[in-house]
Amino acid sequence: MLHNFSNSDSYRLFCSVLRKMAGETTANKQIIFQGYISGELRESNMAVKESSIQLKVPEGSEAVLVKNLYLSCDPYLRGMMEETTAKIPRFKPGSVIKGYGVSKVVDSGHPDFQAGDLVTGITGWEEYSLRWKAEELRKIESKGIPLSYYTGVLGMTGFTAYLGFHELCTPKKGEYVFVSAASGAVGHIVGQLAKLHGCYVVGSCGSDEKVDLVKKLGFDEAFNYKKNTDFDDTLKRYFPKGIDIYFDNVGGKMLDAVLLNMRRNGRIAACGMISRHDGHGTDGGIHNLHRVVINNIKIQGFMQSNYLYLLPKFMEIFTSYVKEGHMKYIEDVREGLESAPSALVGLFAGKNLGKLAVRVAGE
Amino acid sequence: MLHNFSNSDSYRLFCSVLRKMAGETTANKQIIFQGYISGELRESNMAVKESSIQLKVPEGSEAVLVKNLYLSCDPYLRGMMEETTAKIPRFKPGSVIKGYGVSKVVDSGHPDFQAGDLVTGITGWEEYSLRWKAEELRKIESKGIPLSYYTGVLGMTGFTAYLGFHELCTPKKGEYVFVSAASGAVGHIVGQLAKLHGCYVVGSCGSDEKVDLVKKLGFDEAFNYKKNTDFDDTLKRYFPKGIDIYFDNVGGKMLDAVLLNMRRNGRIAACGMISRHDGHGTDGGIHNLHRVVINNIKIQGFMQSNYLYLLPKFMEIFTSYVKEGHMKYIEDVREGLESAPSALVGLFAGKNLGKLAVRVAGE
Repeated sequence: MLHNFSNSDSYRLFCSVLRKMAGETTANKQIIFQGYISGELRESNMAVKESSIQLKVPEGSEAVLVKNLYLSCDPYLRGMMEETTAKIPRFKPGSVIKGYGVSKVVDSGHPDFQAGDLVTGITGWEEYSLRWKAEELRKIESKGIPLSYYTGVLGMTGFTAYLGFHELCTPKKGEYVFVSAASGAVGHIVGQLAKLHGCYVVGSCGSDEKVDLVKKLGFDEAFNYKKNTDFDDTLKRYFPKGIDIYFDNVGGKMLDAVLLNMRRNGRIAACGMISRHDGHGTDGGIHNLHRVVINNIKIQGFMQSNYLYLLPKFMEIFTSYVKEGHMKYIEDVREGLESAPSALVGLFAGKNLGKLAVRVAGE
Repeated sequence: MLHNFSNSDSYRLFCSVLRKMAGETTANKQIIFQGYISGELRESNMAVKESSIQLKVPEGSEAVLVKNLYLSCDPYLRGMMEETTAKIPRFKPGSVIKGYGVSKVVDSGHPDFQAGDLVTGITGWEEYSLRWKAEELRKIESKGIPLSYYTGVLGMTGFTAYLGFHELCTPKKGEYVFVSAASGAVGHIVGQLAKLHGCYVVGSCGSDEKVDLVKKLGFDEAFNYKKNTDFDDTLKRYFPKGIDIYFDNVGGKMLDAVLLNMRRNGRIAACGMISRHDGHGTDGGIHNLHRVVINNIKIQGFMQSNYLYLLPKFMEIFTSYVKEGHMKYIEDVREGLESAPSALVGLFAGKNLGKLAVRVAGE
C-alpha cells in the first residue's frame, strides 16, 4: 500500500507542496564523525546531532534530495575513521558519516530522477541527504522484495560475495570451500553460493547459535572458532584433503592457519579483515605467507567498487536467486537512526546475526 | 670442438665400449643429504661420498644414464631439507641431493634419447645419474649458447622470471616495477624483462657492488637494502607514485614494506621467500597484508613446475633475447662437484653474483 502511494498522484502532490516550501527548512537528524581513532571503535566516536535541511534541491542544479530509508552497517566504515598516515579515503572529523543505503527521492534537478524514485548508493547517515552526484545513484524497483534487501543480498554485500567467490575464485564443482565469519553479512551468502556451485562448504562462526544457523542455510559443516581455538587442527579435521577456496572475512590468525591447509592452485578472496578492523586482531602478524609459493596460491584482495561493470550481471542473477528461494537472506535490522552508532560498534563484537542494517524511516 | 666430438662416430664408439663393460663399475662421486634441518643450512648438512655406478642402463628398461655437466643451485633446495610436519616434497636423509641440471646421455634404453644427447631436467648431485623417468628430460641444442645458460636464463631460473613477471603480472608499458634480490639469478632477469616491456624498474640488492651491476644491466635505479634499512621510507623515495608490480624473491620485512606502497590493482608475484628459507627472516611476521583489500592487490605464489605448458613459448622468446643480446646473463659458476655444498650455503648469505651453478664436468 505504501509502495502504491509512492507512485500515486497524491505522493507527487505531497512532494510538490514540499518543494513550494522553498526557504523553509525541516529538522534533519545526523550521525557525526567525532575524530580519528586508533584502537577499538566506541559509540562516543560518533554523535547524534540535530540539524536542518531544505527539502528542495538548489535552483538550476542537477542534485537530488533523498529521504534515507535504510542504512548499511559495514566493517569498512571503521577503516574510514582510522588514524593513519596512509593515503586512503577517510571521513573528515565533524562531517556526517557516509555509507551505502536505500533512499527515496524527494526532489530532483536531474533529468533521470524524479520524486518518488527508490534509489541505492552512497548516502549520509542522516534523515535527508542532498546528493550532488546523481549519476552515482541507481534506481531500483522492489518488485515485492523487501527494500532492506537492497542494502544487503541485493546490494554491496551480495555483490561482494558474488565477486569474491564467483568472479575471483572461479569455483569448480566438488571443490572444498571455507568461509570465515560465516553467519555474517557476506559469509552466509558465500556459503549458499558455494552450495549452488556444487562445492563442499564449511564455515566458522563466533557462537553455537550462529553455527546452527549456517547449517540450516545449507553449509555442510560449521564450527565455533571460540571453542575450537587450535585453528590448524580444526581445519585439518574439517578439510582432511585441504582447502581449494577460502573466502576470508577476518584475516589474522585464521588466515595464518588456512595458509597451512590450502591445496595446490588454491584461491583466497580477501574482502575485509575484520580482525584487523577491530584494532587488535593481527598484532601477531601472518607467519605462513611463504606457503603461497609451494602451493601456487593466489590471494586476491578486492573492493566491490573496482568491479562496478559486473553489477548488472550480479543483479540479474541474485534477484532471481532471491525470488526463486535459492538464496536465503539473514538480516538484523535496527530501528531508528539513533541506533546506528551502537549497531556499528556491535558489529566488531560479533553482536549481529547476518547483515546489519538500520531502518531510518518507512517509505 | 668438444661439441663436435659428442656428435661424432668416435664418441658413439666410445659409448658402445662403455656399454660393453657390463658388470664393470665406474667411480661416482655424490653429494648426500645428511638429515633434516631447522635453522641455517650448513655445509655439514651435506657430505661428499665416493660411490660407484654401472655406465649402462638395466637391460630392457627405458631408463637413461647421464653424465652431469652443470648443476643449478637454487634457494628452494633448502626447503627440501627442512624439518617440518607439512606434506611438502623433501629429500630423504642419506639420499643424493637432486636438482635441476644439464647432462649428457651416456646410455639410453628410451627410444627418444641416444648417447651424446644433451638434456636438461632434474638430476642427481653426482657425476653420473640413472634417470628412470626419461620423459621428464628435455633435449637441448646449444646452438652456440654456453651450456651453463640452460641451468639459468634458459632454464628454470629464466622460466621463473618470465612466468612471474610476464604471465602472472601482465605488465603494461610505463608501470612501476620493484624487484628484490635484484642481482640474483631470477631478479636480474626480471629487471631486464621489465625494461623490455617499457616499465620503470628499481631493484634492491645486498651490496654496493650489486647495485652497480644491476644499474649496468639497465635497471632505472637500485639501492643497497643493508644501508637503507627503513624500507618503507626508501620505497617511498624510489616510488613516489607507488608500485604496480612487485617481483618478490625475499618475502619478510621487504614484502611488508612493499604492501604499504602498492598502487591500486597492483600485482605481487612470489616465487620464493629466501628470507624465510634462511630460517630467520620472517619471524616478525607480515603485518600489512590487510592492505591487499583496499588496493585490490593480487598476490600470486607460484612454482614454475605448475606451468610447464608455457615452457616452449618461453624457450622461443628467451633464446632469441639471448642470441640477439637483449638479455644479459650474469652467472657465478663454481668448479667441481665438491664445491656444491659450500656454494649452496653461500647462496643464503648472498655470496653469489647472479645465477649460482656448479660445473661438474666438461662435455
